[in-house]
Amino acid sequence: MCQLLGMNCNVPTDICFSFTGFRQRGGSTDVHSDGWGIAFFEGKGVRLFVDPQASAESTIAELVRSYPIHSLNVVAHIRKATQGVTSLENTHPFMRELWGRYWLFAHNGNLPHFQPQLDGSYVPVGNTDSEQTFCWMLQSLRQRFGTDAPSRQELFDALGELSLPLAGMGIFNFLLSNGDCLVAHCSTELSYIIRRAPFAEAHLKDQDISIDFRQVTTPEDRVAIIATQPLTDNEPWVNMRPGTLWMFHDGEVVGQQNTVPSPFKSLAEMLDTERT
Amino acid sequence: MCQLLGMNCNVPTDICFSFTGFRQRGGSTDVHSDGWGIAFFEGKGVRLFVDPQASAESTIAELVRSYPIHSLNVVAHIRKATQGVTSLENTHPFMRELWGRYWLFAHNGNLPHFQPQLDGSYVPVGNTDSEQTFCWMLQSLRQRFGTDAPSRQELFDALGELSLPLAGMGIFNFLLSNGDCLVAHCSTELSYIIRRAPFAEAHLKDQDISIDFRQVTTPEDRVAIIATQPLTDNEPWVNMRPGTLWMFHDGEVVGQQNTVPSPFKSLAEMLDTERT
Repeated sequence: MCQLLGMNCNVPTDICFSFTGFRQRGGSTDVHSDGWGIAFFEGKGVRLFVDPQASAESTIAELVRSYPIHSLNVVAHIRKATQGVTSLENTHPFMRELWGRYWLFAHNGNLPHFQPQLDGSYVPVGNTDSEQTFCWMLQSLRQRFGTDAPSRQELFDALGELSLPLAGMGIFNFLLSNGDCLVAHCSTELSYIIRRAPFAEAHLKDQDISIDFRQVTTPEDRVAIIATQPLTDNEPWVNMRPGTLWMFHDGEVVGQQNTVPSPFKSLAEMLDTERT
Repeated sequence: MCQLLGMNCNVPTDICFSFTGFRQRGGSTDVHSDGWGIAFFEGKGVRLFVDPQASAESTIAELVRSYPIHSLNVVAHIRKATQGVTSLENTHPFMRELWGRYWLFAHNGNLPHFQPQLDGSYVPVGNTDSEQTFCWMLQSLRQRFGTDAPSRQELFDALGELSLPLAGMGIFNFLLSNGDCLVAHCSTELSYIIRRAPFAEAHLKDQDISIDFRQVTTPEDRVAIIATQPLTDNEPWVNMRPGTLWMFHDGEVVGQQNTVPSPFKSLAEMLDTERT
């Protein structure tokens, strides 16, 4: 499996602190050493760093850790290969363009039996189920909305419908961003925290490093960090419930929906049926 | 205007020496300080570094200069903005996917009156004429060949036909690569050199640095370097004739065609016409 890291903010923020801990899981404190990648939106442009080396050892990861890149939306991934060899073209996040925006996708999981029909509009370059699924998602969005980008809410509803059949086919934790919002799907394991005023000190789990966010923020700052497993050991991370899709914008949750049938909803529907 | 740098080889080679000189033109020895970018194919994968800062000053350019990345095809660009603001999304090279391969494009020139009809399959993210032209080229290739990638020769013929109308509309020097070959169009200014055995010493024009290629090569190595202006002052660079399209593969020229009507050909055709 792999691990995911995402960030969504209301002011451009660097991810150096979180990435410092995250990269250690790529070969040092954990086994995800089959490559890593990180992508930063800067306006509509993207800085994409991918590397088939272990992030704990990588020269480029050291640059990313030490060189603050300020971004509203970041998607990062460390890989433990399940499908596809260790190579640059199989390294997440993947990037494509749709509606004049770049889209980034990173996946933690395995969808061994998903064989979508691809029409050629997006074709995987590597041979992972993850990139194939991303291509199918963008193809499906374009089929649904044509050449006009939908609203944020329409996009979120569509992504919920697309995730539903996949959620039952395997492990499908993912992060997706178009630079405007960040969408996160928890299939088995994903957590988030929103840092906002009053800020406090945070301490990494994977390395004995702390940061006092009071020193580096303004009262209006709001930063959502999403990660497979919490990155700090003294903050109130929220475990997302398996089978939920989340949308983050401006550093807060702006949407949440279920991607597995809710037993409560089914019960309610049954009662409704009995009443009629 | 801007400057271009490309490399095409038969064995994965680093571009540190050439990039050392090239990056100086981005704000130090020349005026191209509105951003820079470089992309390396590694197998079918791509490492893409783009930066709206001047390359002579950039921390990321310093990493690229000092960290050898071995590649068969490289496309680089330093920018002096003509159309579009200085921003990450306007920084070359641009990348898209077609037929399950990434394509990279960098442009030196200006096509102020080219307003192509785009059908939505590729849409510019920024607002440069360069990215718009790239989108139109990929759209045209897909329209022509459908979902099946053409042969290298068919691709080269098609690119010649696509370049013909553009060559008359402005300045259109470009580099394009899909990781298999590198295509270069000289509209006004472009040079190349092929380094092969017997190797010799080369000396940069933009910085007092030499390299003895005999120390770092094997007799089979073949490396084509393409640049707007020669990067060394003691090697026999070939000036491409304006109005020519070139294809490089495995470090040598495998195709050349005219993109302006040749007066000699016209004369021959006239003679042919008179004879018949």
